[in-house]
Amino acid sequence: MTAQVPRGLAGVVVTETVLGDVRGSEGFYHYREYSAVELATTRTFEDVWHLMLAGALPSAAEGAAFARRVAGLRALPDDVRAALPAIARASAASGPMAGLRTALSLTGAAAGFRPVYDLTADERRDDALLAGAVVPTLLAALYRLGQGLDPVEPRADLGHTANYLYMLSGREPAPEHARAVERYLISTIDHGFNASTFTGRVIASTGADVAACLVGGIAALSGPLHGGAPSRALDTLDAIGTPDRIQSWVRERVLAGDRIMGFGHPVYRTEDPRSRMLREIAVGFGGPLVEFAVEVERQVEAILAELKPGRELHTNVEFYAGVVMEQCGLPRAMFTPTFAVARVVGWTANILEQAADSKIIRPAARYVGPPPPVPVPAA
Amino acid sequence: MTAQVPRGLAGVVVTETVLGDVRGSEGFYHYREYSAVELATTRTFEDVWHLMLAGALPSAAEGAAFARRVAGLRALPDDVRAALPAIARASAASGPMAGLRTALSLTGAAAGFRPVYDLTADERRDDALLAGAVVPTLLAALYRLGQGLDPVEPRADLGHTANYLYMLSGREPAPEHARAVERYLISTIDHGFNASTFTGRVIASTGADVAACLVGGIAALSGPLHGGAPSRALDTLDAIGTPDRIQSWVRERVLAGDRIMGFGHPVYRTEDPRSRMLREIAVGFGGPLVEFAVEVERQVEAILAELKPGRELHTNVEFYAGVVMEQCGLPRAMFTPTFAVARVVGWTANILEQAADSKIIRPAARYVGPPPPVPVPAA
Repeated sequence: MTAQVPRGLAGVVVTETVLGDVRGSEGFYHYREYSAVELATTRTFEDVWHLMLAGALPSAAEGAAFARRVAGLRALPDDVRAALPAIARASAASGPMAGLRTALSLTGAAAGFRPVYDLTADERRDDALLAGAVVPTLLAALYRLGQGLDPVEPRADLGHTANYLYMLSGREPAPEHARAVERYLISTIDHGFNASTFTGRVIASTGADVAACLVGGIAALSGPLHGGAPSRALDTLDAIGTPDRIQSWVRERVLAGDRIMGFGHPVYRTEDPRSRMLREIAVGFGGPLVEFAVEVERQVEAILAELKPGRELHTNVEFYAGVVMEQCGLPRAMFTPTFAVARVVGWTANILEQAADSKIIRPAARYVGPPPPVPVPAA
Repeated sequence: MTAQVPRGLAGVVVTETVLGDVRGSEGFYHYREYSAVELATTRTFEDVWHLMLAGALPSAAEGAAFARRVAGLRALPDDVRAALPAIARASAASGPMAGLRTALSLTGAAAGFRPVYDLTADERRDDALLAGAVVPTLLAALYRLGQGLDPVEPRADLGHTANYLYMLSGREPAPEHARAVERYLISTIDHGFNASTFTGRVIASTGADVAACLVGGIAALSGPLHGGAPSRALDTLDAIGTPDRIQSWVRERVLAGDRIMGFGHPVYRTEDPRSRMLREIAVGFGGPLVEFAVEVERQVEAILAELKPGRELHTNVEFYAGVVMEQCGLPRAMFTPTFAVARVVGWTANILEQAADSKIIRPAARYVGPPPPVPVPAA
């Protein structure tokens, strides 16, 4: 018995979730029962992490205790430290997502992660918190090693985001930069069902350990059709160069059938609510880059409305995320990995939810080759 | 618009394939148009590898050239060698599948694997062959390091299977042992759609690199609900101990509702054709272990037929695979990793097939939590 479904399983409901949803036609998305953008505006990353994994926003005391707890999980096991230089060298060609994939796989093993089906709910959550806590440390260490610099040890007195920026640059970030990146990170913890979240849940459905599930998520996020890259939108701004070139550059691309990076989203039919929030942050910082970005946005939307009438094409999260990260001094190579710093929390929440189920996700394929059996010819 | 589908996507067709299929009611499975068991009986592992990746069985000259080519890909990059001792130490607790997950991730990065969507079909196949060629080297090196032994360099004059056994033990295997393991490996290259193959294809659908896809497959295979473990069936034989204890041991377990490891399969309603082939191999070797296994099989099937009438419960691939690997001197800890030596070829064939498509696999979830938005309380 087989079911006919749309290609790529589009719209096929594979699971129920209490973690959140995206309402594409309303330009709204939420984590549990709260607006994600409102959370990003009023709460810390650690508070929202607690919400996703523990099920509720923490009180002030709970939030402080949770922040202390995850801050205490940032340091790397010795075997991971020992292997990081080789991992950094090896991933020079394939990039930081390949480095993170390897290093987080190693960290899970070094921490003795066991199959989720052999663990209690508390033990699973311990592994999930450890994984979320070490991702910034791994990324920052690999980045610095790749630059010929020594890794910087994490500081437990800094928040999750500020400590990440500190470990990358070796300098304590300006509070407004740390807060801007924190709001971005909160806004990208989760975003409905997507290929990386789904991958993590398929692996979790086999009962594999938390690192196995996360490595699959990182692997899927590294795919050009999924992870995208906030750096691409910035590259587009660079390629356009000056305001007087916007019209000709954009029209040429659109008429050639090319996508304009940073515009359009598979789910949103309105403005992407993350883009709106990030534009506000970017405009708050000001400067020539954001002025140019706003002008590009205005003209591209007008051109797309003219050349592709009826399609609602607006900036997506990539466009202003790139601008904000550039304003806050993050290196472009770290834009997609920084996305992973946030998304790992969403993946772990999804993995824990999936692990509470006991049904393996195992669809089917239809064989369309020549009919077997054909006798095997002699070698 | 959402589609209602069975839990776990059971029976939901997500893709078409020309790689093979399982006919559960007939006790038959095939690779492309050939019986898999017939291939395992008459061909080499490399010939079937060629069939899966190149689309056709090779002529004698093509087969020899292909075997030379993959033999030349067995050595590890220097950065991988450098990191292996740390990976072996780190995976002592989580096991060899966690070690393989990390080491193959690292190897793909060190080899400069790029997203499949940026590669030609030939370049993708190059990466797939490299990955398949190095898995035995990685597993054998990690195993020996874990035993406090130095890794053994691959030998290009040995076939894929014989070289794997040689790198594990440091001794050239008896030809009949190498051939028995080779037949087992051929028979487990692919087996319809399953959670690890599906995981690899989901990741491939994002355009990620071949190592990213394979790491996801390894991660899923490491889950207790998927990979199983040929060692478990052997542990069952050990637990029963002697023929006179079979009746009481098995009846007690079945009446308690426990599964008997090595019996039953989600797809086959008849004898598992892999089990039949492996029993023949095991009986050919002879000895007290296989005599005991055959007696356990006979009595368990009779007890299951009596206590669970109408259910067709026979030995699955695990049961005699464990016996054969034990007879051939493979350490029990390497039974599931040895399965991965074969399955990586099936995964890569599936990844290449998926990469030729351009549709991301991205299903949906249904939000069932409290209705949002609830205002975010102050911290």
